[in-house]
Amino acid sequence: MIGIFDSGVGGMTVARAIEHICPDYPLIYFGDIARTPYGSKSRETIIEYSRRNTDLLINHGATVIVIACNSAASTATDALRNQYPLPVIDVITPATVKAASVTRGNRVGIIGTRATVRSGVYEDRIQAINPDCRVISRACPLLVPLVEENWLNRRETKMILRRYLHPLRLQQIDTLVLGCTHYPLLSKLIQPRIGKRVQLIDSSIEVAMHLKKFIDNNADIKDKLQQHPAASRFLVSDSTGPVRQLADRIFGRTIHLEKVDA
Amino acid sequence: MIGIFDSGVGGMTVARAIEHICPDYPLIYFGDIARTPYGSKSRETIIEYSRRNTDLLINHGATVIVIACNSAASTATDALRNQYPLPVIDVITPATVKAASVTRGNRVGIIGTRATVRSGVYEDRIQAINPDCRVISRACPLLVPLVEENWLNRRETKMILRRYLHPLRLQQIDTLVLGCTHYPLLSKLIQPRIGKRVQLIDSSIEVAMHLKKFIDNNADIKDKLQQHPAASRFLVSDSTGPVRQLADRIFGRTIHLEKVDA
Repeated sequence: MIGIFDSGVGGMTVARAIEHICPDYPLIYFGDIARTPYGSKSRETIIEYSRRNTDLLINHGATVIVIACNSAASTATDALRNQYPLPVIDVITPATVKAASVTRGNRVGIIGTRATVRSGVYEDRIQAINPDCRVISRACPLLVPLVEENWLNRRETKMILRRYLHPLRLQQIDTLVLGCTHYPLLSKLIQPRIGKRVQLIDSSIEVAMHLKKFIDNNADIKDKLQQHPAASRFLVSDSTGPVRQLADRIFGRTIHLEKVDA
Repeated sequence: MIGIFDSGVGGMTVARAIEHICPDYPLIYFGDIARTPYGSKSRETIIEYSRRNTDLLINHGATVIVIACNSAASTATDALRNQYPLPVIDVITPATVKAASVTRGNRVGIIGTRATVRSGVYEDRIQAINPDCRVISRACPLLVPLVEENWLNRRETKMILRRYLHPLRLQQIDTLVLGCTHYPLLSKLIQPRIGKRVQLIDSSIEVAMHLKKFIDNNADIKDKLQQHPAASRFLVSDSTGPVRQLADRIFGRTIHLEKVDA
Protein backbone atom coordinates (compact mmCIF):
# COMPACT_ATOMS: atom_id res chain seq x y z
CA MET A 1 0.00 0.00 0.00
CA ILE A 2 1.02 3.63 -0.42
CA GLY A 3 1.63 4.88 3.11
CA ILE A 4 0.96 8.57 3.74
CA PHE A 5 1.30 10.42 7.01
CA ASP A 6 0.57 13.93 8.18
CA SER A 7 0.39 15.71 11.51
CA GLY A 8 -3.36 15.95 11.06
CA VAL A 9 -6.08 16.01 8.48
CA GLY A 10 -4.52 18.57 6.07
CA GLY A 11 -2.40 15.85 4.45
CA MET A 12 -5.60 14.42 3.07
CA THR A 13 -5.26 16.97 0.26
CA VAL A 14 -2.16 14.90 -0.66
CA ALA A 15 -4.05 11.60 -0.24
CA ARG A 16 -6.81 12.94 -2.46
CA ALA A 17 -4.38 14.03 -5.17
CA ILE A 18 -2.66 10.60 -5.02
CA GLU A 19 -6.03 8.85 -5.23
CA HIS A 20 -6.81 10.84 -8.40
CA ILE A 21 -3.41 10.52 -10.06
CA CYS A 22 -2.48 6.96 -8.92
CA PRO A 23 -5.94 5.32 -8.78
CA ASP A 24 -4.61 1.74 -9.16
CA TYR A 25 -3.04 1.44 -5.71
CA PRO A 26 -4.63 1.39 -2.27
CA LEU A 27 -3.63 4.01 0.32
CA ILE A 28 -2.97 3.72 4.02
CA TYR A 29 -3.19 7.17 5.60
CA PHE A 30 -2.24 8.16 9.13
CA GLY A 31 -3.18 11.55 10.57
CA ASP A 32 -1.56 12.26 13.96
CA ILE A 33 -4.51 14.34 15.16
CA ALA A 34 -3.66 13.74 18.84
CA ARG A 35 -0.34 15.58 18.39
CA THR A 36 -1.28 18.11 15.69
CA PRO A 37 0.10 20.61 14.75
CA TYR A 38 3.74 19.70 14.16
CA GLY A 39 4.45 23.19 12.79
CA SER A 40 5.06 24.69 16.22
CA LYS A 41 7.15 21.80 17.60
CA SER A 42 10.92 21.38 17.86
CA ARG A 43 13.11 19.46 15.43
CA GLU A 44 13.70 16.53 17.83
CA THR A 45 10.01 16.11 18.57
CA ILE A 46 9.03 16.18 14.89
CA ILE A 47 11.63 13.49 14.03
CA GLU A 48 10.50 11.29 16.93
CA TYR A 49 6.83 11.49 15.86
CA SER A 50 7.72 10.89 12.18
CA ARG A 51 9.50 7.65 13.14
CA ARG A 52 6.48 6.42 15.09
CA ASN A 53 4.18 7.25 12.16
CA THR A 54 6.41 5.39 9.69
CA ASP A 55 6.50 2.30 11.94
CA LEU A 56 2.72 2.37 12.15
CA LEU A 57 2.28 2.61 8.36
CA ILE A 58 4.78 -0.22 7.75
CA ASN A 59 2.92 -2.39 10.29
CA HIS A 60 -0.23 -1.71 8.25
CA GLY A 61 1.35 -2.83 4.97
CA ALA A 62 2.95 0.31 3.49
CA THR A 63 5.75 -0.38 0.99
CA VAL A 64 6.39 3.25 0.10
CA ILE A 65 6.09 6.23 2.46
CA VAL A 66 4.85 9.68 1.48
CA ILE A 67 5.50 12.39 4.07
CA ALA A 68 2.46 14.61 3.44
CA CYS A 69 3.22 17.03 6.28
CA ASN A 70 5.43 19.94 5.26
CA SER A 71 6.80 20.39 8.77
CA ALA A 72 7.78 16.70 8.96
CA ALA A 73 9.08 16.63 5.36
CA SER A 74 11.33 19.63 5.98
CA THR A 75 12.66 18.20 9.24
CA ALA A 76 12.54 14.39 9.24
CA THR A 77 12.99 13.16 5.62
CA ASP A 78 16.73 12.44 5.92
CA ALA A 79 16.31 10.72 9.29
CA LEU A 80 13.63 8.41 7.85
CA ARG A 81 15.65 7.65 4.70
CA ASN A 82 18.65 6.75 6.83
CA GLN A 83 16.65 4.44 9.05
CA TYR A 84 14.15 2.62 6.80
CA PRO A 85 14.85 0.34 3.79
CA LEU A 86 11.87 1.55 1.76
CA PRO A 87 11.35 4.58 -0.49
CA VAL A 88 10.48 7.79 1.36
CA ILE A 89 8.93 10.53 -0.78
CA ASP A 90 8.50 13.97 0.70
CA VAL A 91 5.87 16.55 -0.20
CA ILE A 92 8.47 19.31 -0.64
CA THR A 93 10.92 18.21 -3.34
CA PRO A 94 8.47 17.87 -6.27
CA ALA A 95 7.07 21.36 -5.60
CA THR A 96 10.57 22.87 -5.49
CA VAL A 97 11.54 21.18 -8.78
CA LYS A 98 8.39 22.55 -10.38
CA ALA A 99 8.88 26.06 -8.95
CA ALA A 100 12.52 26.21 -10.06
CA SER A 101 11.52 25.20 -13.59
CA VAL A 102 8.46 27.40 -14.15
CA THR A 103 9.65 30.70 -12.68
CA ARG A 104 10.19 33.21 -15.48
CA GLY A 105 11.67 36.03 -13.44
CA ASN A 106 13.55 33.87 -10.88
CA ARG A 107 11.46 35.19 -8.00
CA VAL A 108 9.67 32.48 -6.06
CA GLY A 109 7.55 32.94 -2.95
CA ILE A 110 6.94 30.29 -0.30
CA ILE A 111 4.18 30.29 2.31
CA GLY A 112 4.02 27.72 5.13
CA THR A 113 4.02 27.12 8.86
CA ARG A 114 6.71 28.54 11.14
CA ALA A 115 8.62 25.23 11.25
CA THR A 116 8.67 24.90 7.46
CA VAL A 117 9.82 28.46 6.87
CA ARG A 118 12.37 28.32 9.69
CA SER A 119 13.91 25.18 8.18
CA GLY A 120 14.79 27.06 4.96
CA VAL A 121 14.36 23.80 3.05
CA TYR A 122 12.37 25.26 0.12
CA GLU A 123 14.93 27.99 -0.38
CA ASP A 124 17.85 25.54 -0.24
CA ARG A 125 16.32 23.09 -2.69
CA ILE A 126 15.14 25.67 -5.21
CA GLN A 127 18.54 27.36 -5.17
CA ALA A 128 20.30 23.98 -5.53
CA ILE A 129 18.44 23.56 -8.84
CA ASN A 130 18.48 27.19 -9.91
CA PRO A 131 21.16 29.24 -8.12
CA ASP A 132 19.93 32.48 -9.73
CA CYS A 133 16.49 32.12 -8.18
CA ARG A 134 15.55 34.48 -5.38
CA VAL A 135 13.27 32.80 -2.81
CA ILE A 136 11.13 34.86 -0.44
CA SER A 137 9.46 32.98 2.43
CA ARG A 138 6.64 33.96 4.76
CA ALA A 139 5.32 32.06 7.77
CA CYS A 140 1.50 32.16 7.97
CA PRO A 141 0.53 30.47 11.28
CA LEU A 142 -3.11 31.65 11.23
CA LEU A 143 -4.07 30.01 7.94
CA VAL A 144 -4.38 26.47 9.31
CA PRO A 145 -6.81 27.44 12.10
CA LEU A 146 -8.79 29.58 9.62
CA VAL A 147 -9.19 26.57 7.30
CA GLU A 148 -10.07 24.34 10.24
CA GLU A 149 -12.72 26.88 11.29
CA ASN A 150 -14.05 26.69 7.70
CA TRP A 151 -13.83 30.50 7.50
CA LEU A 152 -13.00 30.26 3.80
CA ASN A 153 -15.29 33.06 2.71
CA ARG A 154 -14.90 35.42 5.63
CA ARG A 155 -13.67 38.98 5.34
CA GLU A 156 -11.18 38.40 8.18
CA THR A 157 -9.59 35.51 6.27
CA LYS A 158 -9.21 37.71 3.18
CA MET A 159 -7.63 40.51 5.24
CA ILE A 160 -5.22 38.14 6.97
CA LEU A 161 -4.26 36.64 3.60
CA ARG A 162 -3.69 40.12 2.18
CA ARG A 163 -1.45 40.97 5.15
CA TYR A 164 0.53 37.75 4.82
CA LEU A 165 0.90 38.06 1.02
CA HIS A 166 1.71 41.78 0.95
CA PRO A 167 5.51 41.43 1.38
CA LEU A 168 5.57 38.78 -1.35
CA ARG A 169 3.74 41.13 -3.73
CA LEU A 170 6.21 43.91 -2.95
CA GLN A 171 9.00 41.52 -3.91
CA GLN A 172 7.22 40.90 -7.24
CA ILE A 173 7.31 37.13 -7.10
CA ASP A 174 6.09 35.33 -10.23
CA THR A 175 5.59 31.89 -8.63
CA LEU A 176 4.12 30.99 -5.24
CA VAL A 177 4.49 27.60 -3.58
CA LEU A 178 1.66 26.60 -1.22
CA GLY A 179 3.98 25.03 1.34
CA CYS A 180 1.35 23.58 3.68
CA THR A 181 -1.21 20.91 2.96
CA HIS A 182 -4.10 23.03 4.22
CA TYR A 183 -3.44 25.81 1.74
CA PRO A 184 -4.90 24.23 -1.43
CA LEU A 185 -8.29 24.85 0.23
CA LEU A 186 -7.41 28.58 0.16
CA SER A 187 -6.02 28.75 -3.37
CA LYS A 188 -9.09 30.52 -4.79
CA LEU A 189 -8.64 33.26 -2.17
CA ILE A 190 -4.86 33.42 -2.60
CA GLN A 191 -4.78 33.79 -6.40
CA PRO A 192 -6.57 37.19 -6.65
CA ARG A 193 -4.64 38.57 -3.63
CA ILE A 194 -1.20 37.64 -4.87
CA GLY A 195 -2.03 38.60 -8.48
CA LYS A 196 -3.34 36.78 -11.54
CA ARG A 197 0.07 36.50 -13.17
CA VAL A 198 1.63 34.64 -10.24
CA GLN A 199 1.66 30.88 -10.80
CA LEU A 200 0.52 28.88 -7.75
CA ILE A 201 2.28 25.56 -7.14
CA ASP A 202 0.11 23.08 -5.24
CA SER A 203 2.52 20.69 -3.50
CA SER A 204 -0.13 17.97 -3.17
CA ILE A 205 -0.55 17.71 -6.94
CA GLU A 206 3.20 17.84 -7.58
CA VAL A 207 3.98 15.05 -5.10
CA ALA A 208 1.21 12.85 -6.54
CA MET A 209 2.59 13.28 -10.08
CA HIS A 210 6.11 12.55 -8.82
CA LEU A 211 4.87 9.39 -7.05
CA LYS A 212 3.17 8.16 -10.23
CA LYS A 213 6.38 8.58 -12.22
CA PHE A 214 8.38 6.89 -9.46
CA ILE A 215 6.08 3.85 -9.41
CA ASP A 216 6.01 3.60 -13.22
CA ASN A 217 9.82 3.62 -13.28
CA ASN A 218 10.31 1.04 -10.50
CA ALA A 219 8.90 -2.35 -11.44
CA ASP A 220 9.63 -3.94 -8.05
CA ILE A 221 7.74 -1.21 -6.19
CA LYS A 222 4.87 -1.50 -8.66
CA ASP A 223 4.79 -5.29 -8.14
CA LYS A 224 4.73 -4.93 -4.36
CA LEU A 225 1.91 -2.36 -4.54
CA GLN A 226 -0.14 -4.66 -6.80
CA GLN A 227 0.55 -7.86 -4.79
CA HIS A 228 -1.95 -7.19 -2.02
CA PRO A 229 -5.01 -5.45 -3.38
CA ALA A 230 -6.88 -3.86 -0.47
CA ALA A 231 -9.24 -1.00 0.22
CA SER A 232 -7.76 2.36 1.21
CA ARG A 233 -7.80 3.08 4.96
CA PHE A 234 -7.67 6.30 6.92
CA LEU A 235 -6.20 6.01 10.42
CA VAL A 236 -6.08 8.80 12.99
CA SER A 237 -4.65 9.03 16.51
CA ASP A 238 -7.69 11.02 17.59
CA SER A 239 -11.06 11.86 16.07
CA THR A 240 -13.40 14.82 16.68
CA GLY A 241 -16.38 16.27 14.82
CA PRO A 242 -14.48 19.14 13.14
CA VAL A 243 -11.76 16.69 12.00
CA ARG A 244 -14.33 14.38 10.41
CA GLN A 245 -16.03 17.34 8.74
CA LEU A 246 -12.74 18.62 7.31
CA ALA A 247 -11.88 15.14 6.00
CA ASP A 248 -15.25 14.90 4.26
CA ARG A 249 -14.84 18.41 2.88
CA ILE A 250 -11.40 17.63 1.41
CA PHE A 251 -12.55 14.43 -0.30
CA GLY A 252 -16.04 15.60 -1.20
CA ARG A 253 -17.43 12.36 0.24
CA THR A 254 -17.82 10.66 3.62
CA ILE A 255 -14.45 9.33 4.85
CA HIS A 256 -14.42 6.61 7.49
CA LEU A 257 -11.71 7.52 10.01
CA GLU A 258 -10.38 4.64 12.15
CA LYS A 259 -9.00 5.67 15.52
CA VAL A 260 -5.82 3.78 16.46
CA ASP A 261 -3.58 3.96 19.53
CA ALA A 262 -0.39 5.71 18.50
CA MET B 1 5.30 22.61 45.80
CA ILE B 2 2.16 23.86 44.03
CA GLY B 3 1.92 21.76 40.87
CA ILE B 4 0.29 23.43 37.87
CA PHE B 5 -0.20 21.96 34.43
CA ASP B 6 -1.51 23.24 31.14
CA SER B 7 -1.56 22.00 27.56
CA GLY B 8 0.93 24.72 26.71
CA VAL B 9 2.14 28.09 27.76
CA GLY B 10 -1.25 29.80 28.26
CA GLY B 11 -1.57 28.32 31.75
CA MET B 12 1.28 30.56 32.77
CA THR B 13 -1.33 33.29 33.24
CA VAL B 14 -2.57 31.04 36.09
CA ALA B 15 0.97 30.46 37.38
CA ARG B 16 1.56 34.19 37.35
CA ALA B 17 -1.66 34.92 39.26
CA ILE B 18 -0.75 32.23 41.84
CA GLU B 19 2.76 33.68 42.18
CA HIS B 20 1.20 37.09 42.95
CA ILE B 21 -1.56 35.88 45.27
CA CYS B 22 0.31 32.98 47.01
CA PRO B 23 3.89 34.31 47.02
CA ASP B 24 5.02 32.12 49.94
CA TYR B 25 5.03 28.78 48.12
CA PRO B 26 7.19 27.54 45.25
CA LEU B 27 5.53 26.43 41.98
CA ILE B 28 6.27 23.52 39.71
CA TYR B 29 4.71 24.20 36.30
CA PHE B 30 4.39 21.78 33.41
CA GLY B 31 3.37 22.95 29.92
CA ASP B 32 2.68 20.09 27.50
CA ILE B 33 3.89 22.08 24.48
CA ALA B 34 4.64 18.91 22.49
CA ARG B 35 0.95 17.96 22.53
CA THR B 36 -0.69 21.40 22.58
CA PRO B 37 -3.51 22.28 22.01
CA TYR B 38 -5.79 19.99 24.03
CA GLY B 39 -8.86 21.99 22.93
CA SER B 40 -9.26 20.07 19.68
CA LYS B 41 -8.62 16.60 21.14
CA SER B 42 -11.05 13.90 22.26
CA ARG B 43 -12.13 13.24 25.84
CA GLU B 44 -10.08 10.03 26.19
CA THR B 45 -6.91 11.66 24.91
CA ILE B 46 -7.25 14.67 27.23
CA ILE B 47 -7.73 12.40 30.28
CA GLU B 48 -4.73 10.27 29.31
CA TYR B 49 -2.46 13.31 28.94
CA SER B 50 -3.76 14.85 32.20
CA ARG B 51 -2.79 11.68 34.09
CA ARG B 52 0.71 11.74 32.65
CA ASN B 53 1.08 15.42 33.57
CA THR B 54 -0.09 14.79 37.15
CA ASP B 55 2.40 11.91 37.57
CA LEU B 56 5.18 14.16 36.33
CA LEU B 57 4.30 16.96 38.76
CA ILE B 58 4.05 14.54 41.71
CA ASN B 59 7.46 13.11 40.79
CA HIS B 60 8.80 16.67 40.94
CA GLY B 61 7.42 17.29 44.44
CA ALA B 62 3.90 18.65 43.91
CA THR B 63 1.58 18.21 46.92
CA VAL B 64 -1.39 20.01 45.38
CA ILE B 65 -2.38 20.01 41.69
CA VAL B 66 -3.89 22.96 39.83
CA ILE B 67 -5.33 22.10 36.41
CA ALA B 68 -4.66 25.38 34.61
CA CYS B 69 -5.91 24.18 31.23
CA ASN B 70 -9.63 24.76 30.70
CA SER B 71 -9.93 21.86 28.27
CA ALA B 72 -8.29 19.49 30.79
CA ALA B 73 -10.21 20.95 33.75
CA SER B 74 -13.55 20.49 31.99
CA THR B 75 -12.74 16.93 30.95
CA ALA B 76 -10.29 15.31 33.38
CA THR B 77 -10.86 16.79 36.87
CA ASP B 78 -13.08 13.96 38.14
CA ALA B 79 -10.76 11.29 36.72
CA LEU B 80 -7.76 12.85 38.51
CA ARG B 81 -9.65 13.28 41.80
CA ASN B 82 -10.70 9.62 41.69
CA GLN B 83 -7.18 8.42 41.03
CA TYR B 84 -4.85 10.61 43.14
CA PRO B 85 -4.78 11.08 46.94
CA LEU B 86 -3.90 14.78 46.81
CA PRO B 87 -6.03 17.91 46.31
CA VAL B 88 -6.87 18.69 42.69
CA ILE B 89 -8.02 22.25 42.03
CA ASP B 90 -9.44 23.10 38.64
CA VAL B 91 -9.36 26.47 36.91
CA ILE B 92 -13.09 26.38 36.14
CA THR B 93 -14.95 26.10 39.46
CA PRO B 94 -13.76 29.36 41.10
CA ALA B 95 -14.72 31.36 37.99
CA THR B 96 -18.19 29.78 37.91
CA VAL B 97 -18.75 30.53 41.62
CA LYS B 98 -17.76 34.13 41.00
CA ALA B 99 -19.90 34.48 37.85
CA ALA B 100 -22.97 33.01 39.56
CA SER B 101 -22.58 35.43 42.46
CA VAL B 102 -21.87 38.68 40.60
CA THR B 103 -24.38 38.48 37.74
CA ARG B 104 -27.10 41.07 38.29
CA GLY B 105 -29.38 40.09 35.44
CA ASN B 106 -28.72 36.32 35.51
CA ARG B 107 -27.21 36.37 32.04
CA VAL B 108 -23.65 35.01 31.90
CA GLY B 109 -21.53 34.54 28.77
CA ILE B 110 -18.69 32.03 28.42
CA ILE B 111 -15.96 32.08 25.79
CA GLY B 112 -13.46 29.22 25.40
CA THR B 113 -12.05 26.55 23.10
CA ARG B 114 -14.27 24.06 21.31
CA ALA B 115 -13.59 21.32 23.90
CA THR B 116 -14.47 23.57 26.83
CA VAL B 117 -17.69 24.82 25.27
CA ARG B 118 -18.67 21.35 24.05
CA SER B 119 -18.26 19.96 27.58
CA GLY B 120 -20.98 22.31 28.90
CA VAL B 121 -19.18 22.37 32.24
CA TYR B 122 -19.44 26.13 32.86
CA GLU B 123 -23.13 26.07 32.14
CA ASP B 124 -23.74 23.07 34.42
CA ARG B 125 -21.78 24.50 37.35
CA ILE B 126 -23.21 28.00 37.15
CA GLN B 127 -26.74 26.62 36.97
CA ALA B 128 -26.03 24.25 39.87
CA ILE B 129 -25.32 27.34 42.01
CA ASN B 130 -27.90 29.64 40.45
CA PRO B 131 -30.63 27.73 38.58
CA ASP B 132 -32.20 30.97 37.31
CA CYS B 133 -29.03 31.97 35.50
CA ARG B 134 -29.04 31.81 31.72
CA VAL B 135 -25.60 30.83 30.35
CA ILE B 136 -24.65 31.56 26.74
CA SER B 137 -21.46 29.91 25.44
CA ARG B 138 -19.37 30.60 22.36
CA ALA B 139 -16.36 28.64 21.08
CA CYS B 140 -13.58 30.94 19.82
CA PRO B 141 -10.90 28.66 18.30
CA LEU B 142 -8.99 31.48 16.55
CA LEU B 143 -8.17 33.46 19.69
CA VAL B 144 -5.35 31.19 20.91
CA PRO B 145 -3.41 31.35 17.62
CA LEU B 146 -3.96 35.12 17.46
CA VAL B 147 -2.45 35.52 20.96
CA GLU B 148 0.40 33.18 20.05
CA GLU B 149 1.07 35.28 16.93
CA ASN B 150 1.15 38.33 19.24
CA TRP B 151 -1.43 40.04 17.00
CA LEU B 152 -2.92 41.78 20.03
CA ASN B 153 -3.28 45.16 18.37
CA ARG B 154 -4.23 44.11 14.88
CA ARG B 155 -7.43 45.11 13.13
CA GLU B 156 -8.09 41.48 12.17
CA THR B 157 -7.99 40.44 15.83
CA LYS B 158 -10.48 43.15 16.73
CA MET B 159 -12.82 42.11 13.88
CA ILE B 160 -12.63 38.45 14.84
CA LEU B 161 -13.35 39.34 18.48
CA ARG B 162 -16.32 41.44 17.41
CA ARG B 163 -17.65 38.53 15.35
CA TYR B 164 -17.20 36.07 18.22
CA LEU B 165 -18.72 38.42 20.82
CA HIS B 166 -21.65 39.63 18.70
CA PRO B 167 -24.09 36.82 19.66
CA LEU B 168 -23.25 37.37 23.34
CA ARG B 169 -24.02 41.09 23.00
CA LEU B 170 -27.34 40.29 21.35
CA GLN B 171 -28.18 38.10 24.35
CA GLN B 172 -27.40 41.08 26.63
CA ILE B 173 -25.09 39.22 28.99
CA ASP B 174 -23.95 41.20 32.05
CA THR B 175 -21.01 38.93 33.00
CA LEU B 176 -18.44 37.26 30.73
CA VAL B 177 -16.14 34.45 31.84
CA LEU B 178 -12.79 34.25 30.01
CA GLY B 179 -12.81 30.45 29.84
CA CYS B 180 -9.34 29.95 28.37
CA THR B 181 -5.98 30.79 29.89
CA HIS B 182 -4.84 32.74 26.84
CA TYR B 183 -7.74 35.16 27.01
CA PRO B 184 -6.57 37.40 29.89
CA LEU B 185 -4.01 38.72 27.37
CA LEU B 186 -6.99 39.89 25.25
CA SER B 187 -9.09 41.37 28.06
CA LYS B 188 -8.33 44.98 27.09
CA LEU B 189 -9.64 44.25 23.57
CA ILE B 190 -12.61 42.26 24.82
CA GLN B 191 -13.97 44.81 27.31
CA PRO B 192 -14.85 47.60 24.80
CA ARG B 193 -16.26 45.07 22.30
CA ILE B 194 -18.56 43.32 24.74
CA GLY B 195 -19.54 46.59 26.46
CA LYS B 196 -18.30 48.54 29.46
CA ARG B 197 -21.07 47.35 31.73
CA VAL B 198 -20.27 43.66 31.28
CA GLN B 199 -18.09 42.33 34.10
CA LEU B 200 -15.19 40.18 32.89
CA ILE B 201 -14.24 37.20 35.07
CA ASP B 202 -10.58 36.23 34.72
CA SER B 203 -10.39 32.54 35.66
CA SER B 204 -6.66 32.75 36.45
CA ILE B 205 -7.24 35.32 39.22
CA GLU B 206 -10.26 33.45 40.61
CA VAL B 207 -8.39 30.13 40.84
CA ALA B 208 -5.40 31.80 42.53
CA MET B 209 -7.66 33.40 45.15
CA HIS B 210 -9.43 30.07 45.71
CA LEU B 211 -6.09 28.30 46.13
CA LYS B 212 -4.96 30.84 48.70
CA LYS B 213 -8.12 30.31 50.75
CA PHE B 214 -7.77 26.53 50.41
CA ILE B 215 -4.18 26.57 51.71
CA ASP B 216 -5.04 28.95 54.55
CA ASN B 217 -7.87 26.62 55.63
CA ASN B 218 -5.84 23.38 55.44
CA ALA B 219 -2.96 23.34 57.91
CA ASP B 220 -1.57 20.00 56.71
CA ILE B 221 -1.37 21.22 53.11
CA LYS B 222 0.22 24.45 54.29
CA ASP B 223 2.78 22.46 56.32
CA LYS B 224 3.66 20.24 53.38
CA LEU B 225 4.09 23.25 51.08
CA GLN B 226 6.37 24.95 53.61
CA GLN B 227 8.42 21.83 54.43
CA HIS B 228 10.59 21.91 51.33
CA PRO B 229 11.40 25.46 50.34
CA ALA B 230 12.60 25.44 46.75
CA ALA B 231 12.75 27.75 43.74
CA SER B 232 9.85 27.68 41.29
CA ARG B 233 10.46 25.65 38.14
CA PHE B 234 8.90 25.74 34.70
CA LEU B 235 8.97 22.45 32.79
CA VAL B 236 7.87 21.97 29.18
CA SER B 237 7.65 18.91 26.91
CA ASP B 238 8.96 21.00 24.00
CA SER B 239 10.48 24.44 23.62
CA THR B 240 10.52 26.83 20.66
CA GLY B 241 11.28 30.53 20.22
CA PRO B 242 7.65 31.71 20.09
CA VAL B 243 6.86 29.67 23.23
CA ARG B 244 9.75 31.25 25.15
CA GLN B 245 8.68 34.71 23.98
CA LEU B 246 5.09 34.15 25.08
CA ALA B 247 6.26 32.90 28.51
CA ASP B 248 8.39 36.00 28.95
CA ARG B 249 5.52 38.20 27.78
CA ILE B 250 3.08 36.66 30.30
CA PHE B 251 5.44 37.05 33.26
CA GLY B 252 7.03 40.31 32.17
CA ARG B 253 10.45 38.82 32.87
CA THR B 254 12.73 36.12 31.45
CA ILE B 255 11.44 32.65 32.34
CA HIS B 256 13.83 29.70 32.22
CA LEU B 257 11.95 26.80 30.57
CA GLU B 258 13.36 23.33 31.28
CA LYS B 259 12.63 20.76 28.58
CA VAL B 260 11.74 17.33 29.99
CA ASP B 261 10.83 14.04 28.30
CA ALA B 262 7.12 13.49 28.76
